Amino acid sequence: MNETISLPRTPKAIDLASLDALFRPRSVAVIGASANAGKIGGLPIHYLKRAGYDGDIYPINPRRTEIQGLKSWPSLAAVPAAVDLAVIAVPAAQVREALLVVAAKGTKSAIIFSAGFAELGADGVRLQDELAAIGRKAGIRLLGPNCSGYANFANGAWVTFAPLLEEGQDSVGNVGLVSQSGAFANFGYRVGRNRGIRFSQWLTTGNTIDVDIADGLAFLAADENTKVILVYMEGCADGARFIEALALARARRKPVVVVKVGTTEAGAAAVSSHTAALAGEDSVFDAVLRQYGAYRARSVEELFDIGYAAANGTLPNSAKIAITSISGGVGVLLADEAATRGLDIAPMPEPAQAALRELVPFAGTRNPVDVTAQVINDFDLFDRSLEVVLQQGDYDMLVCFMGYLGLSKEYGPRILPLWESVRRRHPERTLAVATLFDPAIRQALEEAGHLVFEEPTHAVRALAALRHFAESFGRADGAAVSRPPGLLSLPAEAGPLNELDSLAIVQAAGIPTIGAIAVGSAEEATQAFRRIDAEGGRRAVLKVVSRELPHKSEAGGVRLGICSEEEAGAAYSEVMARVAQRAPGIAVDGALVAPMAEPGIETIIGVHRDPVFGPVVMFGLGGVFAEVLRDVAFRVAPFDVAEARRMIAETKASAILAGARGGPAVDVGILAQALADLSRFASAHAERVESIDINPFSVGPTAACALDAVVVLRGE
Amino acid sequence: MNETISLPRTPKAIDLASLDALFRPRSVAVIGASANAGKIGGLPIHYLKRAGYDGDIYPINPRRTEIQGLKSWPSLAAVPAAVDLAVIAVPAAQVREALLVVAAKGTKSAIIFSAGFAELGADGVRLQDELAAIGRKAGIRLLGPNCSGYANFANGAWVTFAPLLEEGQDSVGNVGLVSQSGAFANFGYRVGRNRGIRFSQWLTTGNTIDVDIADGLAFLAADENTKVILVYMEGCADGARFIEALALARARRKPVVVVKVGTTEAGAAAVSSHTAALAGEDSVFDAVLRQYGAYRARSVEELFDIGYAAANGTLPNSAKIAITSISGGVGVLLADEAATRGLDIAPMPEPAQAALRELVPFAGTRNPVDVTAQVINDFDLFDRSLEVVLQQGDYDMLVCFMGYLGLSKEYGPRILPLWESVRRRHPERTLAVATLFDPAIRQALEEAGHLVFEEPTHAVRALAALRHFAESFGRADGAAVSRPPGLLSLPAEAGPLNELDSLAIVQAAGIPTIGAIAVGSAEEATQAFRRIDAEGGRRAVLKVVSRELPHKSEAGGVRLGICSEEEAGAAYSEVMARVAQRAPGIAVDGALVAPMAEPGIETIIGVHRDPVFGPVVMFGLGGVFAEVLRDVAFRVAPFDVAEARRMIAETKASAILAGARGGPAVDVGILAQALADLSRFASAHAERVESIDINPFSVGPTAACALDAVVVLRGE
Repeated sequence: MNETISLPRTPKAIDLASLDALFRPRSVAVIGASANAGKIGGLPIHYLKRAGYDGDIYPINPRRTEIQGLKSWPSLAAVPAAVDLAVIAVPAAQVREALLVVAAKGTKSAIIFSAGFAELGADGVRLQDELAAIGRKAGIRLLGPNCSGYANFANGAWVTFAPLLEEGQDSVGNVGLVSQSGAFANFGYRVGRNRGIRFSQWLTTGNTIDVDIADGLAFLAADENTKVILVYMEGCADGARFIEALALARARRKPVVVVKVGTTEAGAAAVSSHTAALAGEDSVFDAVLRQYGAYRARSVEELFDIGYAAANGTLPNSAKIAITSISGGVGVLLADEAATRGLDIAPMPEPAQAALRELVPFAGTRNPVDVTAQVINDFDLFDRSLEVVLQQGDYDMLVCFMGYLGLSKEYGPRILPLWESVRRRHPERTLAVATLFDPAIRQALEEAGHLVFEEPTHAVRALAALRHFAESFGRADGAAVSRPPGLLSLPAEAGPLNELDSLAIVQAAGIPTIGAIAVGSAEEATQAFRRIDAEGGRRAVLKVVSRELPHKSEAGGVRLGICSEEEAGAAYSEVMARVAQRAPGIAVDGALVAPMAEPGIETIIGVHRDPVFGPVVMFGLGGVFAEVLRDVAFRVAPFDVAEARRMIAETKASAILAGARGGPAVDVGILAQALADLSRFASAHAERVESIDINPFSVGPTAACALDAVVVLRGE
Repeated sequence: MNETISLPRTPKAIDLASLDALFRPRSVAVIGASANAGKIGGLPIHYLKRAGYDGDIYPINPRRTEIQGLKSWPSLAAVPAAVDLAVIAVPAAQVREALLVVAAKGTKSAIIFSAGFAELGADGVRLQDELAAIGRKAGIRLLGPNCSGYANFANGAWVTFAPLLEEGQDSVGNVGLVSQSGAFANFGYRVGRNRGIRFSQWLTTGNTIDVDIADGLAFLAADENTKVILVYMEGCADGARFIEALALARARRKPVVVVKVGTTEAGAAAVSSHTAALAGEDSVFDAVLRQYGAYRARSVEELFDIGYAAANGTLPNSAKIAITSISGGVGVLLADEAATRGLDIAPMPEPAQAALRELVPFAGTRNPVDVTAQVINDFDLFDRSLEVVLQQGDYDMLVCFMGYLGLSKEYGPRILPLWESVRRRHPERTLAVATLFDPAIRQALEEAGHLVFEEPTHAVRALAALRHFAESFGRADGAAVSRPPGLLSLPAEAGPLNELDSLAIVQAAGIPTIGAIAVGSAEEATQAFRRIDAEGGRRAVLKVVSRELPHKSEAGGVRLGICSEEEAGAAYSEVMARVAQRAPGIAVDGALVAPMAEPGIETIIGVHRDPVFGPVVMFGLGGVFAEVLRDVAFRVAPFDVAEARRMIAETKASAILAGARGGPAVDVGILAQALADLSRFASAHAERVESIDINPFSVGPTAACALDAVVVLRGE
């Protein structure tokens, strides 16, 4: 076995060290400082003081000597110390000049609050491109423009004018948020707090001329207080950096939950009309998140609900979930949800069911467990029932629906002692309680380590997400491939290669291909048939070879089922004559003769170059699956065989590979190996490969084979 | 044209008049009355008094003369007046005796609170069957046992012991809830109130030995205060009555939202283990709801969120929705949600876009409309922007995401005047506002006719549901078929019919079939070929005919591509000999000769008998679509051609009928007619038809044809 290597997709681009001065500054200057604590130039000073920021604050305003109780400086240059971070809170027209002053001072990071750039059209784009150039030249990390800044709840650096931070947060939490939109981040801060989330960091990136979502994500991945990362993004311009950040978060075992807008065609059209960022093909983006173990949320509520669970819940060691309920019907509703989300509603062992029946004679004991209303009148019985489930059923997760009990004057106060007792005996289980809550009981339950929900199905959804994270963190890095790619020398010219050359490249990439023989005359066709016949006595096919003829059959360029040398020679003459007649003037590179394929299931595997994420491998079954139903799976190259297996399993059609429809099961391992090999090749030659289509790639019970291929190259 | 008739599926079974005494009693007796207002026999008296019930209350308790300030009666018999409703709140063992007393009194309705029946196993089933028999004999409508009763908020008849009603409701609302589970109903009452719902009726059915979900649904459909109906159900034992109730609600244009548990196999297994009701095949249940315009919710939150929107929102005249947002990104998120849910995100007309740019220079103007943060500082501009969208864009629905503004001290108070102004100019539009709200502003906005949401995607989901209801109410009753079914005389015997007889029945049902000719000898086969040849010169097929041989091809019983009279005769002898050899001893009814089919798309249409809903028609495309992907649609018979078209459109494969994959578009009208005809036949012969499989039913550009069929009959 070769040594495991990680193929770098592009040079590493995230420079974490340089973000420190920006997000953990020891001193902050505010250019355009205001004495009015309600103004954009006054709020950050107000917040920094209020949050107990432990660094130096330098208000810069030439018309004042004192601002909000601090000495005001006439200019950044006048500050008699080094400054880590400059906040630029002046009108757009004055930002360029301010940034030049920052550069001259040697300050290594700046936030531009000011709006009036790319969001206002082409002139604004030019203006912000100029800012980016100044920043690059001076080595300044720039946040914004048109952003709401950030709040670091660990050191009190609330460098923002966001109105919703008014209420603050009295200690550092464990959830980091990074948002491209300030409006979303403002909304989300409050939604998150309402959901019981305490933030560690709250970052907005705005127009992202330098520091972007990938930087923010990587910073949060490395931040010691941040346990869970929430992301809101509208586009992704640099897929490699985004993937680097996702990989870093996964390596640190930090759950990442992402809302990305623009999934449908309507949505994507609107994104490109209002931001400059590339939205990327959504199914590819989706695949990237899956590949790197992130969770994609489809609503604001889901983002914060999953974030809440990940911040407060234990990641379960298995998918085994116990569902307990005081209402049998709701237990069933939750079982449906759990099944839909791939959790394992393993039935209780028979002795455990018997023990439960002993306690609650008419309980539903299988799983879901219906503890019935009987336990409401006897919380000790409730406790003992839960103990049977957890102890004898050995579930890693448990969700319990308690109806309205949390609000009941009579029963509400008994809930906390019940669950504290359960928790004491099972400190390591993931326990979720769904009921309507009195806020005080709710908080106490959370402090005792339980996840609490009002909507019972959301409890199940959240536990499924926790399992998703555990599973993702537990597996090997799928992008660390185990064999070096073997760089090939490819033709220099751009454009499609003919079938023979394409098959040769595919074969050199390690993918089994049909043994095609190039022939230039009827005589050579005869000889080729003889070789094929000698090797196994199969029938043969003869095809015209031309990079200019994608639809060979329509042009009469294919002859199937050749049984003899004579037929082979005649087929050559016939096919060449027919092509010359039906497609006059096209360049023909002779023909090929190949054995007819063994029967197998026809799949389509290929590569295309995503503008954001580079080479992306696709898999699908031939026929209606890929073409009509778009039942295909994507992965960003490179990836290993295990990742390829997950990719195959994602398609609905994969049931057919396992022998549905009465057919034989085929060798999925060979198929997975071919996908992994193709991904490694595409990754190694990312600059040259425009696309590869292997269609069909025929997979049988013990072998597989590329029957046709088109490789399209980019110029050197 | 024949006159439109409605085919009764079964005799009408819902007797609304008899429910009046139960749900709108003029007098209530409580058997097992308690002086303790916290006990099961005391709570209903407490509630009836507290809710200002306007009828007579008779506590029955032989050990007391006065209960909660009312005269107590020693027995029901002693009450010197007729009693509409008897509440039985005694232990299970005493219920039978109590019910006999109710019967003797001539009281026509009773509620049995008591638990301890079917939920406790076989003995309990026997016990409650006995109660049902007593009730039937005496003409008593029975609610329960093991139910929480009901609350009628119109007349103060709160005949329940549900603890959560403690807080009450000071006037009658417009949302009716009917729930099989008391625990769910208790939970749901509070979830609904929290969501801003005011209830008209709150009904629980428990073990449903008589009054069931269908009765409750029908009662709510007829109830004048109820505008929207929410249903929680665990099973459905009588599909015809449930459909009757759904149809009644639709006829009254009342939106119905349903949570039904037990969708997955795991869920369904748990349902049948804890209730006696039949869960029904879930895809059929799903089809029934779609067919009758009800909305299926997948969580408790969704049930009440859609219920809230239907209770307070206008049903939109079209699917056109405007999405406006102060955050471009969230606008895109909402556009995604709207597209997924089938709404029409029609772009703004170009002049409207220009007008909007005039107002807000850097707005995103297409749709979603990004009004940008500029409008936050100028609510008049906000108002004028919304006016451009609604007036010039002509949308029936508008959703507006306002971020955190609802909570802002500065901007929050301006929200209400803004929307009041919009509402004044557009009283008929469906307007939804999504933001974080101060509760007072929220309530004022609702009172001004707006729908309010915290989660913006839920606003879109709710508007899509309103459109779903509008569309459903606007169309003709799909079960009112336009041609009489033409009753056929069917063989008396049970079991499968052979292909010839099956095709004959299918043809008599009005469905085009291949012209198969029965042949009993080589000579007859020759003659049959001659007839076919004379009619069009097509090749022919010869097949053995046997009801005992489902797999004809495997037994060598089929010969395709017959070109001459001689071949036809030889084929007969050959096929008969082969079948005799390969399948010795089976009964053979000769053979058939038929023309080979014209090329077409192979579909599968069929009927099966659902245990709950009776004859159900299925449609799917042949091949992997139906067999592997289960991409099939169901409808309960009978239905009309328009409903059949909706059924076809539900399958993903329907794109192929319209000409995907480069094939010609086929005549979907003929296919829809065949499905409607099949449904009419199946409905008319519901007692005799076990199943019908027409596979394939080949559909071409101008014609369609059943090529093979198996009809299975039930005995007379």
